[in-house]
Amino acid sequence: MNQANTFGNRPRARDLGIEIGVLAPGQWNAITDVAGVRVGHSTIIQGKGVLVPNEGPVRTGVTAILPHTGDLFLEKVTGAVVQINGFGEVTNSQQIDEMGTLEGPLMITNTMNVPRVADAVIDWAFEHNAAQGVSTWGISPVVAETSDSYLNDIRGRHVTKSHVFEAIDSARDGIVTEGAVGGGTGMICYEFKGGIGTSSRVLPDELGHYTVGVLVQSNFGSRRKLRVDGVPVGRELLAYDERLARDSQGSVIVVIATDAPMSSRQLKRLGLRAAFGLARTGTQGGNTSGDFAIAFSTTRNRPHHSTAHTLMLEQIVEDTQLINALFDAVVEATEEAVLNSLFKAETMIGRDNHTVHALPIAETVEIMNRHGRPQVHLP
Amino acid sequence: MNQANTFGNRPRARDLGIEIGVLAPGQWNAITDVAGVRVGHSTIIQGKGVLVPNEGPVRTGVTAILPHTGDLFLEKVTGAVVQINGFGEVTNSQQIDEMGTLEGPLMITNTMNVPRVADAVIDWAFEHNAAQGVSTWGISPVVAETSDSYLNDIRGRHVTKSHVFEAIDSARDGIVTEGAVGGGTGMICYEFKGGIGTSSRVLPDELGHYTVGVLVQSNFGSRRKLRVDGVPVGRELLAYDERLARDSQGSVIVVIATDAPMSSRQLKRLGLRAAFGLARTGTQGGNTSGDFAIAFSTTRNRPHHSTAHTLMLEQIVEDTQLINALFDAVVEATEEAVLNSLFKAETMIGRDNHTVHALPIAETVEIMNRHGRPQVHLP
Amino acid sequence: MNQANTFGNRPRARDLGIEIGVLAPGQWNAITDVAGVRVGHSTIIQGKGVLVPNEGPVRTGVTAILPHTGDLFLEKVTGAVVQINGFGEVTNSQQIDEMGTLEGPLMITNTMNVPRVADAVIDWAFEHNAAQGVSTWGISPVVAETSDSYLNDIRGRHVTKSHVFEAIDSARDGIVTEGAVGGGTGMICYEFKGGIGTSSRVLPDELGHYTVGVLVQSNFGSRRKLRVDGVPVGRELLAYDERLARDSQGSVIVVIATDAPMSSRQLKRLGLRAAFGLARTGTQGGNTSGDFAIAFSTTRNRPHHSTAHTLMLEQIVEDTQLINALFDAVVEATEEAVLNSLFKAETMIGRDNHTVHALPIAETVEIMNRHGRPQVHLP
Amino acid sequence: MNQANTFGNRPRARDLGIEIGVLAPGQWNAITDVAGVRVGHSTIIQGKGVLVPNEGPVRTGVTAILPHTGDLFLEKVTGAVVQINGFGEVTNSQQIDEMGTLEGPLMITNTMNVPRVADAVIDWAFEHNAAQGVSTWGISPVVAETSDSYLNDIRGRHVTKSHVFEAIDSARDGIVTEGAVGGGTGMICYEFKGGIGTSSRVLPDELGHYTVGVLVQSNFGSRRKLRVDGVPVGRELLAYDERLARDSQGSVIVVIATDAPMSSRQLKRLGLRAAFGLARTGTQGGNTSGDFAIAFSTTRNRPHHSTAHTLMLEQIVEDTQLINALFDAVVEATEEAVLNSLFKAETMIGRDNHTVHALPIAETVEIMNRHGRPQVHLP
Repeated sequence: MNQANTFGNRPRARDLGIEIGVLAPGQWNAITDVAGVRVGHSTIIQGKGVLVPNEGPVRTGVTAILPHTGDLFLEKVTGAVVQINGFGEVTNSQQIDEMGTLEGPLMITNTMNVPRVADAVIDWAFEHNAAQGVSTWGISPVVAETSDSYLNDIRGRHVTKSHVFEAIDSARDGIVTEGAVGGGTGMICYEFKGGIGTSSRVLPDELGHYTVGVLVQSNFGSRRKLRVDGVPVGRELLAYDERLARDSQGSVIVVIATDAPMSSRQLKRLGLRAAFGLARTGTQGGNTSGDFAIAFSTTRNRPHHSTAHTLMLEQIVEDTQLINALFDAVVEATEEAVLNSLFKAETMIGRDNHTVHALPIAETVEIMNRHGRPQVHLP
Repeated sequence: MNQANTFGNRPRARDLGIEIGVLAPGQWNAITDVAGVRVGHSTIIQGKGVLVPNEGPVRTGVTAILPHTGDLFLEKVTGAVVQINGFGEVTNSQQIDEMGTLEGPLMITNTMNVPRVADAVIDWAFEHNAAQGVSTWGISPVVAETSDSYLNDIRGRHVTKSHVFEAIDSARDGIVTEGAVGGGTGMICYEFKGGIGTSSRVLPDELGHYTVGVLVQSNFGSRRKLRVDGVPVGRELLAYDERLARDSQGSVIVVIATDAPMSSRQLKRLGLRAAFGLARTGTQGGNTSGDFAIAFSTTRNRPHHSTAHTLMLEQIVEDTQLINALFDAVVEATEEAVLNSLFKAETMIGRDNHTVHALPIAETVEIMNRHGRPQVHLP
Repeated sequence: MNQANTFGNRPRARDLGIEIGVLAPGQWNAITDVAGVRVGHSTIIQGKGVLVPNEGPVRTGVTAILPHTGDLFLEKVTGAVVQINGFGEVTNSQQIDEMGTLEGPLMITNTMNVPRVADAVIDWAFEHNAAQGVSTWGISPVVAETSDSYLNDIRGRHVTKSHVFEAIDSARDGIVTEGAVGGGTGMICYEFKGGIGTSSRVLPDELGHYTVGVLVQSNFGSRRKLRVDGVPVGRELLAYDERLARDSQGSVIVVIATDAPMSSRQLKRLGLRAAFGLARTGTQGGNTSGDFAIAFSTTRNRPHHSTAHTLMLEQIVEDTQLINALFDAVVEATEEAVLNSLFKAETMIGRDNHTVHALPIAETVEIMNRHGRPQVHLP
Repeated sequence: MNQANTFGNRPRARDLGIEIGVLAPGQWNAITDVAGVRVGHSTIIQGKGVLVPNEGPVRTGVTAILPHTGDLFLEKVTGAVVQINGFGEVTNSQQIDEMGTLEGPLMITNTMNVPRVADAVIDWAFEHNAAQGVSTWGISPVVAETSDSYLNDIRGRHVTKSHVFEAIDSARDGIVTEGAVGGGTGMICYEFKGGIGTSSRVLPDELGHYTVGVLVQSNFGSRRKLRVDGVPVGRELLAYDERLARDSQGSVIVVIATDAPMSSRQLKRLGLRAAFGLARTGTQGGNTSGDFAIAFSTTRNRPHHSTAHTLMLEQIVEDTQLINALFDAVVEATEEAVLNSLFKAETMIGRDNHTVHALPIAETVEIMNRHGRPQVHLP
């Protein structure tokens, strides 16, 4: 499907004059502003009407984030997974924790499709490397998830190997399609349509000009709590159309990329700041919300095999404003990425004709204006 | 000193019409709304002018939170410590983590005084129990800290055994003195005077009418980031008096009490929500900020010794809106407790004539009004 | 295949007079001594000779441990996963950590087959529950793994849905088949043939008569380090046949079941003692060894949905010799389960004619005799 | 007191021909084999007879381990603390965990004396650095403990500032006094007299010739479980003199130093292997045993303040036998250090005439001989 046609009609937060925080975004205001990082989606939308398990309607997909342009198995990035609320899964997070590295493309999909996506990542890795499972061990796929069961036939596990390959192989730098695409296709955020959102921050030259990029798959939050840059937009929109009466039944995955050279310990610290960014959008981190941050640094790659006893790794010094600015960058970009997932996603009708409305933009602009944000405007 | 005279002149957030969140506070809007919880302070203010290490000026103290009215050693409460940013210390947190219980009064003081306060807690416990160290093991004191070195002669470690005993023995229920008192005496929050703040939430009857109380010792944050209920108050006050140009050099301790019966695992989940409350006041969780939550439940006390093989412990079911409401309560009360620490603390001049200004109330009210909060008013 | 014929010819450790520790085993000296726990295997042995990836030879399988006889999704057991060395995976361990419960059958297979087994567990759960993914969320499968790539065409991922169903549906109480069966089919332990082993301990009446059962899938260790009840058997067998010159390239999964009522915090403590049991067999916990303990208590089951605010849960008191005896039980049963995996497994020839020899029993008995263990004897 | 006179009369394990593992020890077979590491003790033995709390008898002390010869505050070593069983305390472990560094001398003392020792370390650091608490923050003292209440008037907290200074200032390289000295003065191990023990391992040249040194303060274990190189010595010595009938009431601190360049993540992995070494001496990790490993690398020191954005840190590659050999070194040296604490400690009579016997050497040698260790001999 032509994603550009479908999802190009709504503005991003910044198009409306909503500028989160004080740091500047990168060129694309996307995770792809971190050099080498690429994003690809496969979106599956089929059927309508009453749910027939294993048939449809289908409103799902898968998103791939590729950490660098080299061989993703033979060169591993330094990484960390932070469990904000562990009602969910990031596969192989224990290995990332133990070894401090992360290999392969990061995949985000729906909950029940995790195994099939992980298996397809193995297929993909095996196709690219005949040694795996023969003369060396195989890839440890990293797959995260949130649940799209309100809109999608999640029992059907409709994401197949070909979708996974499509997401990985179509990954590119530059603009990232946001909203109801890829893994975010059937997701709901603050009881509005959510999905994929992204944002980035570039540190000033005197702090090293490092870039932090964030991509979220948003599927969490109660409408009444939604804040946009501190403004209680959700409370004012309670009467907007029907309310789903869900309280954080969903989840959120926050992927953080940076070209700042950081150890896995430092990336854990960085990843936890995703919770601060999420909190600023209003959530309390709901009980059944599987909230994880996956953070990686693109500039400390380690080879799959090495015969050297030691290597030299660059890492940032935690004794200047640099680390605080990196933390700020995560908080700001996470908040803005969630907003972008809301602003970009269009109304979707899914299984059993469940309808999830897009965040109404004109009303939101008006509420922002009433709350001391005169600079917010329609695009 | 007469704390009431000194600290009674400024309003709390709610006195100004600032109501954080949707849940109702308890009678005192304080951690003491949890039955049995008592708070005591010892405040030490001596000298002025140039710092003479080990002499003064002294702007420090210690605060005691007593979890229940029984024997605090022989009856242990279920508890958990959450490390939000571990640049700091909560003594004996490993034992709390391992055993799921917490004993004795919780103490909060300044960083360098931790050992002396811990030693005094041992003195206090030994005076109340002749068996400790003789026929059973001794208390594991729980002492948390933030640094008051900008205003106080922190090298002097001026909190003595008598101050610790005063804080513990004067602890009482009802109104909690806030601002520059006890452990919070010399603390700074968002570059304004901070210190002790408290707030509480009571769940509706249909969610069990449980109470969550929070007490913070606030010593963190950059002024430019300060948010009051989402309104960017700090940004608008950047020009207010001098700026300290600190970025989250400090720390914050969040003590959470509840009468909801919760296991240590559940209390860890609860405690992490303190980070969400802190985030809503603007912070990113600064690099050198020692940010900890200490959570306990008052209704699952366990005896020091027991000959039974098993016991029955009540715990909340994590399958209803109850747990989400408890999470909400922590987020809301943490946010409001930080605000109360700011609203209640008065301008202080300390070592080397360092001056830390109180948050200006009239200006804050005016900023709030301009940001769509017409209900905020002078007291 | 008829497992009894193939694997019944070698003795267990205790058949030789090797009695580990001081506590008594249960009736079957197996994890199935914990009431309700059942074990099933599916073993796949096909082809021989040169490896043709995706074809064979196949030396693999899957093992299922069912925690109780009820509905494994609707009634969840209290559980915990302990990461001893995280170079490996236990799927959905983060959820177990967050919620303290574990659902469904526990599966153990080879590394690359984890996703397919997880997907098949979802199939199995969906077949037993039409509500999953429709009106409630779906199962979070728990699948653990070790690598059989030395003997097996691991790229082929030969464990299919039917094998998973066979393992689950054939699970039974009583005698557990050990050695090169199920998930353990192609595993190597201390450079001898390893695989599945099990053992149990029953506490004396005065300590509550609780049972602890352990099942391991052993795939770790350097021959030179192997200890049998402290005796350096591996060192003495260095010259026995060829040496594989592997140093802990493998992994080990330790599943611990108990009918002692324990919280997830307590089960974490219990699970860590698996490391003590493993250490006594000689290993140092090798770098690339994915070593995990999965512990669960069968007597605190919690319903999938509940409308009550609280529930009462029994838990053991950590103030008597009971908890120490439970720790002992884990150490002893883990050590003996590893030994049983070695004693029971027969020599296997796998891919590329790789041969892994069974631990030679007569030689082992002789070594034991020489080291002050006259009671050890041939069966 | 003249430690040499008192403690020099008993052999170390290796003097008896007991050689643990396969790696070679360093010159001193002590933690001081790691270049720059120094150890000092202050031993306090006063009075005898009936316990008069706060008077005596006193059988206690403090041990200091200095990680390098430079300024211990301004140059921090990379470090990690591993909680094996957290019924105890290592002060400031959260900061070590968060920042990956460790500052100052490591102190080991008795449980109730932790605060006084920590306070004295602050005194010591303040005396060496006038900026602390004035223009920069103060030291975070690292103090670990085990309980000597069976032999010592632990209520008295008899370790004073002068003892702490004596331990730090007398620290030296070379031979380390072992047994009932320093923090280990009043400790009990496997119901025999324990205390301080140390050992080291040097990796072969082809694995980088790195050194690992271990020092333990042993205070744990039930006699019946004691193993010496796998031989069940404790079981055979059950009838030796009275039995204390304690089951792991104590604790153990394991300090691990290495000149291998390791990150804090890697040091955590290293530290966990202390549990494997302890397990080989027989313990199950008792319920009330505060078992911690503190690991540090001497070759990645980081400055207190820095204006650089990044630094280059060497770290070992986890892809060769090097890391496994480092793990082996910890296991072997921990086991041998525990044995040395037993072999070196002499019988002690303490409070209330409690007598703790030294491990009988002739009997132990004889048991070893009977268990296939003919090379073990009297010194």
